[in-house]
Amino acid sequence: MPARCNPRPPTRVGAEEQPPTHPVPTGDPEDAPPPAAHSDPAGSAPVPAADDAALAGGSTGPDHLRPLLDVSLRALADGAAHRNGPIPAGDPSELADGVRAATGDLLPDTGTGATAALEQLTRILASGSADPGDPSCAAHLHCPPLAVAVAAETAAAALNPSLDSWDQAPAATTMETQLLGVLAGLVGYHPASASGVLTSGGTESNLMGMLLARDAALRNAPGAVEPARDGITAAPRLRVLCSQEAHFSVQRNAAFLGLGESAVIPVPVDQHHRMDPAALEQALTRCRGIPAAVIATAGTTDAGAIDPLARIAKVARRHRAWLHVDAAYGGGALFSQRLASLLDGLAASDSVALDLHKLGWQPVASGVFLTRQAQSLDPLARRVAYLNPADDEEAGYPSLLGNSMRTTRRADVFKIAVTMRALGRDGMGRLTDTCHDLARHAARRITADPALQLAADPVLTTVVFRYTDTRDPDRVNAALRRRLLRAGSAVVGRTELDGAVWLKLTLLNPQARQNDVDALLAAVVAAGAEEDQ
Amino acid sequence: MPARCNPRPPTRVGAEEQPPTHPVPTGDPEDAPPPAAHSDPAGSAPVPAADDAALAGGSTGPDHLRPLLDVSLRALADGAAHRNGPIPAGDPSELADGVRAATGDLLPDTGTGATAALEQLTRILASGSADPGDPSCAAHLHCPPLAVAVAAETAAAALNPSLDSWDQAPAATTMETQLLGVLAGLVGYHPASASGVLTSGGTESNLMGMLLARDAALRNAPGAVEPARDGITAAPRLRVLCSQEAHFSVQRNAAFLGLGESAVIPVPVDQHHRMDPAALEQALTRCRGIPAAVIATAGTTDAGAIDPLARIAKVARRHRAWLHVDAAYGGGALFSQRLASLLDGLAASDSVALDLHKLGWQPVASGVFLTRQAQSLDPLARRVAYLNPADDEEAGYPSLLGNSMRTTRRADVFKIAVTMRALGRDGMGRLTDTCHDLARHAARRITADPALQLAADPVLTTVVFRYTDTRDPDRVNAALRRRLLRAGSAVVGRTELDGAVWLKLTLLNPQARQNDVDALLAAVVAAGAEEDQ
Repeated sequence: MPARCNPRPPTRVGAEEQPPTHPVPTGDPEDAPPPAAHSDPAGSAPVPAADDAALAGGSTGPDHLRPLLDVSLRALADGAAHRNGPIPAGDPSELADGVRAATGDLLPDTGTGATAALEQLTRILASGSADPGDPSCAAHLHCPPLAVAVAAETAAAALNPSLDSWDQAPAATTMETQLLGVLAGLVGYHPASASGVLTSGGTESNLMGMLLARDAALRNAPGAVEPARDGITAAPRLRVLCSQEAHFSVQRNAAFLGLGESAVIPVPVDQHHRMDPAALEQALTRCRGIPAAVIATAGTTDAGAIDPLARIAKVARRHRAWLHVDAAYGGGALFSQRLASLLDGLAASDSVALDLHKLGWQPVASGVFLTRQAQSLDPLARRVAYLNPADDEEAGYPSLLGNSMRTTRRADVFKIAVTMRALGRDGMGRLTDTCHDLARHAARRITADPALQLAADPVLTTVVFRYTDTRDPDRVNAALRRRLLRAGSAVVGRTELDGAVWLKLTLLNPQARQNDVDALLAAVVAAGAEEDQ
Repeated sequence: MPARCNPRPPTRVGAEEQPPTHPVPTGDPEDAPPPAAHSDPAGSAPVPAADDAALAGGSTGPDHLRPLLDVSLRALADGAAHRNGPIPAGDPSELADGVRAATGDLLPDTGTGATAALEQLTRILASGSADPGDPSCAAHLHCPPLAVAVAAETAAAALNPSLDSWDQAPAATTMETQLLGVLAGLVGYHPASASGVLTSGGTESNLMGMLLARDAALRNAPGAVEPARDGITAAPRLRVLCSQEAHFSVQRNAAFLGLGESAVIPVPVDQHHRMDPAALEQALTRCRGIPAAVIATAGTTDAGAIDPLARIAKVARRHRAWLHVDAAYGGGALFSQRLASLLDGLAASDSVALDLHKLGWQPVASGVFLTRQAQSLDPLARRVAYLNPADDEEAGYPSLLGNSMRTTRRADVFKIAVTMRALGRDGMGRLTDTCHDLARHAARRITADPALQLAADPVLTTVVFRYTDTRDPDRVNAALRRRLLRAGSAVVGRTELDGAVWLKLTLLNPQARQNDVDALLAAVVAAGAEEDQ
């Protein structure tokens, strides 16, 4: 669907729904299953009926799921048609009012029944979503998931494996170990000596890298403490070094870990937004406190910049600092023959974060944390009587509990494994290349348009630019973006460079075409002209 | 399906699959879609074909999802039939070998196509799962998800909203705020002044409570520091108090936060495994360092014990300690008219953890963190140019970024909202009551069986017991549990009481019947007798 420059009338999310006092769903009455008896407004019938509490698993699960998935799919289609664009038109407060009115009470005394609630709320969600499957939704590292990944997610959700003990996830335990081995090989680690775990995303993966670095630094420090046991309140001051353009989660995580945001020393970048290894060397030499970790970025959120990993690895090693690479975004380049060499040097890191819900086309969450040496995770090991008793492990029952900071943990492995096996490295790489091609096309169009300015040639799949045919570019760029949102016609990103407002396209939709990008840019120019009047 | 006492021949997970060098799935050839051209072993066809990379969203998403969901459902049914019980029979290493052989390469150069990979791996996952939908799978707080929740999960996965910015999740942002208000009301907080966030589970929710408590204590301490900025390496020693039977994540989280596991002071329990408020008072009075937090438990993992919340709240308030309640398990009692009063006093806490993937019948993850006062979350607030610029917030665009420790965050809200609206509070409560009834029935049967010993009357839905018709109960109970696992006939939990091995049923399946429980206990007795020979 091309971007639309003309504002649509505001969408009232769920406006076709009945008011909350009559929570019977609409939808095509010929297609829809008959309403459950207990959705009768009189509310006198018993709740829940047997089918409302039907399980997704067991021998009858698939039969119970089938009609409900049909309801979901119809409501998704209805909602998308009602939305009719990448995002619902309207002001946020108006949209929020619409959602609240349409959903009604989320915990009524008497339920509406499974079919009614599912149809009603799915239509509201779909009509009120920013859908990354629409080519005009291109603001964030918020990918459109592949259908095969979503179908795999459904299977995993039905079986509900939890990876904190083998007897909650026999096959998934093996699959996660397999997948981590494959991904370790992809980043250049030796699969037999590496380890890792799936996470909720780059922020958690970065937290794990920083945690292991913190505790390793303190264990090796003079007058060492055992930080996990003793805490760090009497420990020497630790430092974390990363580029000025590293993800903000580095600072946040430093606060969570008790190091404080001020422990983070930002290292200057070159004109391509990459950490300068000479500046890193200088910062490490001058830094007061123990340099616990260097965090390199492979794919900054805005520029997609990739720090020079091999040179940074040498500097970090010389200063005995743990090297963690935040490749949440750029890790997807490893699938591509064309782009993989951008991450040369990654294999010399101590740990790495990948996010398959970025360049990997997975539903959130699909975070990955990898360590080059499996024993790096030893400090997280934990013996728990109800999860991994010693005699069970001796009897051959493996436990992944000590690989994670969490306890209950979903089998995000499954959708990733299915997708990678379905597409292969060539297929995944082709999707990455397609998005990279779209970004290069966008850059060419921006350069050719006198009303637009390109910040830099794209490295991965983001393009930072702005509308310049105005005397007040900061106000106009910020306002044109909101204008497009309110119109429901495009979801464009924004950021700041040197304190100025810039726009951003994050192109993660491999089904988008060059003319979709052209239409998006035309919509930006049109909205800019309208805002500048 | 009743528990089976007789071991089945070991299941070879995925044994019917082709060897990995010929990755064409089996399955019913009449039902199965035609294999994709590029799953041809010759591997000469292009990859991926258009459909393999089809998106779940956009206007065509539902059409692409439908045939793939059909494949998932068929493979789930096939896999469950092949497993033929709650867990695959066999030794863990043998099962792992079977999974590895059946999956083949998880990142081949050339993919097998979406249909083939999905069918193949879903059958392997299903045949190799511990399925909580089977009444003989009753070891852990690992619930069988409702079909309606899984269908809702599918819809959310297709749209892939991420709650770190409004323009990735317009409707989901509103729904999460709505749902948190409803849950705040359920725990007794004032919805208008409370706040919270959805999390990956109890461990993360407890981490958030402890983080807020840590930083609040240091901000209020004499010679206060701003811990998020300055870190805690020069801070006074903090203490966290919880019952001896609190979840192990309290200690782990103390280590993550830099407090160290030794910061945790375990408080003695009464004979019902509940924290003793007088002992808490004494521990707080004597404790060296600042008592940052008291963590009460509403539903211990083994006994289901619920600490006396109202009395603990008074003690904590007197000592100005943050009171966090880990109600990850017991929170489900709030749905039940019969059991809700067990949590009286919860409203006086500062924060609370709930897990709807326990007594809530959701797929993982469905964790909830709530704070009584919304401003408690202020220290997590963060201004990020690309996510929540100030002028966007002034223009009315809300941001949930500062409610969470994460950045990208999936819309777990959706499945919970659909389920609660479908079943209502009465329906949810009835499911809780059914599981509670099953636990009471199990306790009666155990008491009546001379070969079994009951540890205590069940409080919620767990029953701790052991086989006693042996001179070596520790060895026999541990071994009989593994015997049932190897036979594929039952998944029974285990734990330790006073250093001795005990068994546990965690009854979370509201579709299970009393005779399922009877069969499970009969299987335990039979396996105990066999192990004792």
